[in-house]
Amino acid sequence: MSKDRHDRDSLIIPPHYRKLKRGPQVILPKDIGAIITYTGVNKNSICVDAGTGSGWLAVSLAKVAKHVTSYDIRDEFTQIAQKNKEMEQLDNLILKKGDVTKKISEKDVDLVTLDMPSSEKALKNAHKALKTGGYVVGYLPHFEQVSKFVDNLNKLKFNNLLTIEVIVRDILVREQGMRPSTKGIWHTAYLVFAQKQ
Amino acid sequence: MSKDRHDRDSLIIPPHYRKLKRGPQVILPKDIGAIITYTGVNKNSICVDAGTGSGWLAVSLAKVAKHVTSYDIRDEFTQIAQKNKEMEQLDNLILKKGDVTKKISEKDVDLVTLDMPSSEKALKNAHKALKTGGYVVGYLPHFEQVSKFVDNLNKLKFNNLLTIEVIVRDILVREQGMRPSTKGIWHTAYLVFAQKQ
Amino acid sequence: MSKDRHDRDSLIIPPHYRKLKRGPQVILPKDIGAIITYTGVNKNSICVDAGTGSGWLAVSLAKVAKHVTSYDIRDEFTQIAQKNKEMEQLDNLILKKGDVTKKISEKDVDLVTLDMPSSEKALKNAHKALKTGGYVVGYLPHFEQVSKFVDNLNKLKFNNLLTIEVIVRDILVREQGMRPSTKGIWHTAYLVFAQKQ
Amino acid sequence: MSKDRHDRDSLIIPPHYRKLKRGPQVILPKDIGAIITYTGVNKNSICVDAGTGSGWLAVSLAKVAKHVTSYDIRDEFTQIAQKNKEMEQLDNLILKKGDVTKKISEKDVDLVTLDMPSSEKALKNAHKALKTGGYVVGYLPHFEQVSKFVDNLNKLKFNNLLTIEVIVRDILVREQGMRPSTKGIWHTAYLVFAQKQ
Repeated sequence: MSKDRHDRDSLIIPPHYRKLKRGPQVILPKDIGAIITYTGVNKNSICVDAGTGSGWLAVSLAKVAKHVTSYDIRDEFTQIAQKNKEMEQLDNLILKKGDVTKKISEKDVDLVTLDMPSSEKALKNAHKALKTGGYVVGYLPHFEQVSKFVDNLNKLKFNNLLTIEVIVRDILVREQGMRPSTKGIWHTAYLVFAQKQ
Repeated sequence: MSKDRHDRDSLIIPPHYRKLKRGPQVILPKDIGAIITYTGVNKNSICVDAGTGSGWLAVSLAKVAKHVTSYDIRDEFTQIAQKNKEMEQLDNLILKKGDVTKKISEKDVDLVTLDMPSSEKALKNAHKALKTGGYVVGYLPHFEQVSKFVDNLNKLKFNNLLTIEVIVRDILVREQGMRPSTKGIWHTAYLVFAQKQ
Repeated sequence: MSKDRHDRDSLIIPPHYRKLKRGPQVILPKDIGAIITYTGVNKNSICVDAGTGSGWLAVSLAKVAKHVTSYDIRDEFTQIAQKNKEMEQLDNLILKKGDVTKKISEKDVDLVTLDMPSSEKALKNAHKALKTGGYVVGYLPHFEQVSKFVDNLNKLKFNNLLTIEVIVRDILVREQGMRPSTKGIWHTAYLVFAQKQ
Repeated sequence: MSKDRHDRDSLIIPPHYRKLKRGPQVILPKDIGAIITYTGVNKNSICVDAGTGSGWLAVSLAKVAKHVTSYDIRDEFTQIAQKNKEMEQLDNLILKKGDVTKKISEKDVDLVTLDMPSSEKALKNAHKALKTGGYVVGYLPHFEQVSKFVDNLNKLKFNNLLTIEVIVRDILVREQGMRPSTKGIWHTAYLVFAQKQ
């Protein structure tokens, strides 16, 4: 059997993600993995997520956490996420229509993930919703967003700030030899982590 | 408050990992995160891990999976891992002394992770232990190891082969401006994923 | 003979650069190489450089170009650069004390390279000094500097704007196997290129 | 004027390279730049290059070096390179049909660059052609090629071995914000450098 069975598409979307529906943009497994390990999400964790989008992050968190509430102000996205939730049979994932810059109802949560046009505006409510030691994570494609997000974090009682970029490179292992693939994904977003003091 | 609170050390070891004991080498959160999302490990997953080493991967998997058995042939490593298991209070993690190239007792498992000097020699037993659709993952620092591992995978009924390298870059967000850090971790190991047919 | 003769230090400083004196910061060969090929500097090129610093860029340009004038407002740096110029016996390199944000005397030059705290303030004079089709290059460590530099470029008649980051990875080829080195240089500066219309 | 004038295509091929003809594969400016600075090629350098291919490396070297001889065993490639030589009016570039694994006529050269299917077979002749302190460079897409090349280097009197990968990332600076581009070139080839003892 040939080494060429290598599955190039799985770089972005491993088999178990491919059955999920997707809108224009999704948070990729490379970033979801770092969110899980850098915040220590586990079977006892209570999470809040916004905006839901296609729900890939919410669904992935619900598979490892105790409970996830995911907010979006856009109806069309909640519908895609609803189908993904049903496909994965996740009773511990609640999809809510709502604006987290105005209100987060949940209390004592372990993790708040923010992927919105102005995520920094939700930091005050995220801080209130988190328990001490809980994490907020910003998913921020542009430098200017990171700068604003960190500025706002610094006005609130957060510590252990960390900004990272997660890069996954695809290595081709074939009959003719082994080499990194010529082209690939270079950037999705920066991840900013901070812990409530 | 200054933007300088940025926590450089957390790049490698986020706060919740710092309390864990470590031997000479550990699998880092950047790689553990990708292992979780690329294989879809979740609260229902049964996992087998070898070798245990300091147990960072085993402990991290046990926090999100139903059950983890971790094998090592070296006593001293099992002791470090035992302390980490106790610190995290993980009743669903079993540490076994044993050689997975000779035998894996577990059946119908969802994931087998291999980080050993000759991981490719454990692939036959990994294949037997896995359920259909279950994943094997090799953690392999050198190119030559990847080549051997993929060669052996191709002799067995595995598909959806994927080899990746996960890179995490640290971005400094400070008063004087924002920039990637000058130096950092470039390489730990390649991750090879394959699914039992 | 062993594969271990691999020379790790040469990543940053190849042998022929090691004899050069250096101050606190130098522009590295990885970035100098891209400056040369992305601007097409050649034996007929007239170049202007500021600030001189330790003169590594000025010296490297003088080795391939027809003539280089390098400006710095700081005396101590011109002295280090003077020694490097003598060591390389480069009669076509002129070291001038002067502030390029106030004046660049040269005309019809092919390349202006800027590595100063506020490089964007020298763009007007760079534009005047350049011939049509000539390149300006900014060496800018922080994102905010890139943003300001590009804003100022856009107010002048420049085109073919390009911003890149040049990354060099060190691959270890040793008896025990081949792998990228564990740690290394991740970031020096962004390079912004633009061509006078 | 908008920040959107950013020229994405120039990442691979800056304006002055675009007029050159190209066959199926060319050595890109990112790699040519590193070859120039890591070997110290300058106006006094005598270079030998093989195989010519489209001649991008040969032409680029001829623009900064004293003299370049480029060998190829394939007629069709020499024709493309001939046109590029004429376009750049480079009298100091000689295109020869010939097999460098059999013979390199030049003596006391400063640089031999090798980009062929079995570059390691030309190392003996490269060593003979080089002056003491002169560099050989291998342009090698696959790991296996690097391994063979380094093995052969180690059988000859070479030192200062260095293997690198040069990566260029494209940063988009636009009205909506600044960010690395989503997709891009990840890998062309490894560069192996060694100096004749």
